[in-house]
Amino acid sequence: MPNPQLNANGELTHLLAIDGLPRETLLHILDTAASFLGIADREVKKVPLLRGKSVFNLFFENSTRTRTTFEIAAKRLSADVINLDINKSSTAKGETLLDTIDNLCAMHADMFVVRHAASGAPYLIAEHLSRMGHNDIHVVNAGDGRHAHPTQGLLDMYTIRHYKQRFEPLTVAIVGDILHSRVARSDITALIALGAREVRVIGPQTLLPTDLASMGVKVYHDMRVGLRDCDVVIMLRLQNERMDGALLPSAGEYFKHYGLTPEKLALAKPDAIVMHPGPMNRGVEIDSAVADGTQAVILNQVTFGIAVRMAVMSILAGN
Amino acid sequence: MPNPQLNANGELTHLLAIDGLPRETLLHILDTAASFLGIADREVKKVPLLRGKSVFNLFFENSTRTRTTFEIAAKRLSADVINLDINKSSTAKGETLLDTIDNLCAMHADMFVVRHAASGAPYLIAEHLSRMGHNDIHVVNAGDGRHAHPTQGLLDMYTIRHYKQRFEPLTVAIVGDILHSRVARSDITALIALGAREVRVIGPQTLLPTDLASMGVKVYHDMRVGLRDCDVVIMLRLQNERMDGALLPSAGEYFKHYGLTPEKLALAKPDAIVMHPGPMNRGVEIDSAVADGTQAVILNQVTFGIAVRMAVMSILAGN
Amino acid sequence: MPNPQLNANGELTHLLAIDGLPRETLLHILDTAASFLGIADREVKKVPLLRGKSVFNLFFENSTRTRTTFEIAAKRLSADVINLDINKSSTAKGETLLDTIDNLCAMHADMFVVRHAASGAPYLIAEHLSRMGHNDIHVVNAGDGRHAHPTQGLLDMYTIRHYKQRFEPLTVAIVGDILHSRVARSDITALIALGAREVRVIGPQTLLPTDLASMGVKVYHDMRVGLRDCDVVIMLRLQNERMDGALLPSAGEYFKHYGLTPEKLALAKPDAIVMHPGPMNRGVEIDSAVADGTQAVILNQVTFGIAVRMAVMSILAGN
Repeated sequence: MPNPQLNANGELTHLLAIDGLPRETLLHILDTAASFLGIADREVKKVPLLRGKSVFNLFFENSTRTRTTFEIAAKRLSADVINLDINKSSTAKGETLLDTIDNLCAMHADMFVVRHAASGAPYLIAEHLSRMGHNDIHVVNAGDGRHAHPTQGLLDMYTIRHYKQRFEPLTVAIVGDILHSRVARSDITALIALGAREVRVIGPQTLLPTDLASMGVKVYHDMRVGLRDCDVVIMLRLQNERMDGALLPSAGEYFKHYGLTPEKLALAKPDAIVMHPGPMNRGVEIDSAVADGTQAVILNQVTFGIAVRMAVMSILAGN
Repeated sequence: MPNPQLNANGELTHLLAIDGLPRETLLHILDTAASFLGIADREVKKVPLLRGKSVFNLFFENSTRTRTTFEIAAKRLSADVINLDINKSSTAKGETLLDTIDNLCAMHADMFVVRHAASGAPYLIAEHLSRMGHNDIHVVNAGDGRHAHPTQGLLDMYTIRHYKQRFEPLTVAIVGDILHSRVARSDITALIALGAREVRVIGPQTLLPTDLASMGVKVYHDMRVGLRDCDVVIMLRLQNERMDGALLPSAGEYFKHYGLTPEKLALAKPDAIVMHPGPMNRGVEIDSAVADGTQAVILNQVTFGIAVRMAVMSILAGN
Repeated sequence: MPNPQLNANGELTHLLAIDGLPRETLLHILDTAASFLGIADREVKKVPLLRGKSVFNLFFENSTRTRTTFEIAAKRLSADVINLDINKSSTAKGETLLDTIDNLCAMHADMFVVRHAASGAPYLIAEHLSRMGHNDIHVVNAGDGRHAHPTQGLLDMYTIRHYKQRFEPLTVAIVGDILHSRVARSDITALIALGAREVRVIGPQTLLPTDLASMGVKVYHDMRVGLRDCDVVIMLRLQNERMDGALLPSAGEYFKHYGLTPEKLALAKPDAIVMHPGPMNRGVEIDSAVADGTQAVILNQVTFGIAVRMAVMSILAGN
């Protein structure tokens, strides 16, 4: 099966997941992002690359935060941005997802940024566009179910490269609720593709998927062992709903075992960086002393995230 | 009573309904829309005709779909668009509708796109603007109660003209819930004004208004008779709430009698086109084989709709 | 304690309250607003002063009306405007207010327009920005609790100066629910700073704060006495929730004593102007004959409000 993200020339036509993207494509996105980073420091933070293009933010699942990052990125590229809160829209009137897409295509959409609770929804849309011959309309996955969140994965890679230059010598630990995390899945795939020496996941048995070994990832249940000599520590957000369920005893108990404190962080390399996709639960998965400490690069991730999303959108629009 | 839609020079100053608009005005809108159609295929899909103008989408009734078409049209004309979900706004604080309008006029609004559950609300606003001397502020009716939806009527006319060139030889059938449909009302008025040879409505007794004969429209209850030799078939959306009530036995029963299937469509002329204002209820008023078939021009209606709305807005702003 | 609104050079860096702003700063804002007033009459109502800047409307408390005025002002300055309805956003996910702010700073925000139910929230944000070294990011208070609503205060001053030229000879009465009104507080402070001869407040005992005498304000419970010989009458909106509570007997009783009727207005000077921040409760605090009468300048306040907000934003962005 050909990769639906690449066109016949091997150029990126949709961004659906990190999986299956060639290493060069990933690096091309990171390099392009680097060129956009300076724009935010200019007096006029805009470039006309997407002028006159219509970017639709299709958020079937509410996420003001992620929507905002894409909205800013698109506006700084001079696109016209239309936010659609689809829960309130036609699908509520019984229209199917693909009828909605067909309608927006007929309005001459150029790009769909899609967030959906169902894994695979952006694929479904991309396949439908291809079937309908809309090869000039592009899909960006802004998070689908537990499956993928590729721009978060890319901005994490950008952040790591920014601070560590090369992936090859790195040991990277991802800590927390791997099972429900699309961020973890995207990060693991990207780290392996970019040649990181060792990828570790750390978490309680109940929050780890069972297929990790086959991905070439080392599994740890004891955070004090797993963090040892790491270069990069990626903390995951603990969804509140996990704590109410049967998966975890309590937030306090979780923090004791898997919360990142200065004492636990000291087990990693002295120059290790600490990352988090946000929003943080302070005192649950991360101690404020770490979140606000000198090793945290969490806010820089946000800054890089805008540049990465501008890069993805401009690369897609260029093809 | 002078037509509140036309100024002293006979120029369009508001678009409230098709009723009372001279044939030349309708044709001028369609011709202007044709000139906008090409813009969507350009690299930069924008023209500066409404640059610096403030267009307010005043949606007293929620309709993401219609609001989006006006938002895109206004942005492609380079207007500043401000979406106001009025349910949440000042009217909830006890301010009257006209106080809200006065306030927005004081902010130097240039155009109001109004959607309201009450028939006549856009007229009320237009009359108020005239009384207050705001002759440079324009109202576009984006659907008021059961009364009118003139831009839908115009885009339907654009679609028919695009495929059939002339209205004079045409037999057009409108099928379904005529009684509750502002689209049907706008279409019938436009078709008569533009000289269509024969306008037919087809539907169950309970969903047809009683004043149709006086409008010069032929009434059919048997779809197989009514579709015979038609050039154009306009299907209407069946509101879900109708099916729960006493007006209709069931969706299945409705589909059997008034759903457009390939077999029923075969009774119309071989080159008949099938239209629908969307969103479609597949399997209720229209079979998927027809909706996705070669005679359907439903998505083209959407494309033409953007051009028609751009035309209306630019004509209004030019007066 | 230095004034957090002014930088080391005494230039305006945030607009949090009228309190503590030098008279020259207030006059500079009013003069700048005057220069923006003409823009609304131009064919293209835009200036490029904030082009490429990202203005975030952070509304922790819903107010479509106020949000719209800032959105229009920012768009007419050519800024990119991002509306964040924060109730739905990350703070709902347990993120703290300041983490949200940090994130938006990391996205290279240029300005936050903040509305919050808690008094002092905009101060908290401004102090945090200063602590984090973000001296190029500006805060505008769009209403915080019962504390302040400085742009409303400024537009009221603009209105008074427009009609009366000088503050020194004026007697100004503010009528109604002073206790819960951030508008009253901002107006009183501004009037005193600008040298109005006499500031009066008129209202029932239960709706007046106890510290008014110390502010140099004259207190009246009898509207017929308090209005005598006034040059300016500022009516306040009576929140519906006050009428349900123990503070007031009924809306009818309130109107009898404190509603502005033509008969009561006749006690003020013949050329007195009548102001109201909107939205009005006709028949509660103001009679329609007054609201729509020749002495009312209520809609002009709205027009001036856009110019004042453009002035504030452009002054902040210029520092």
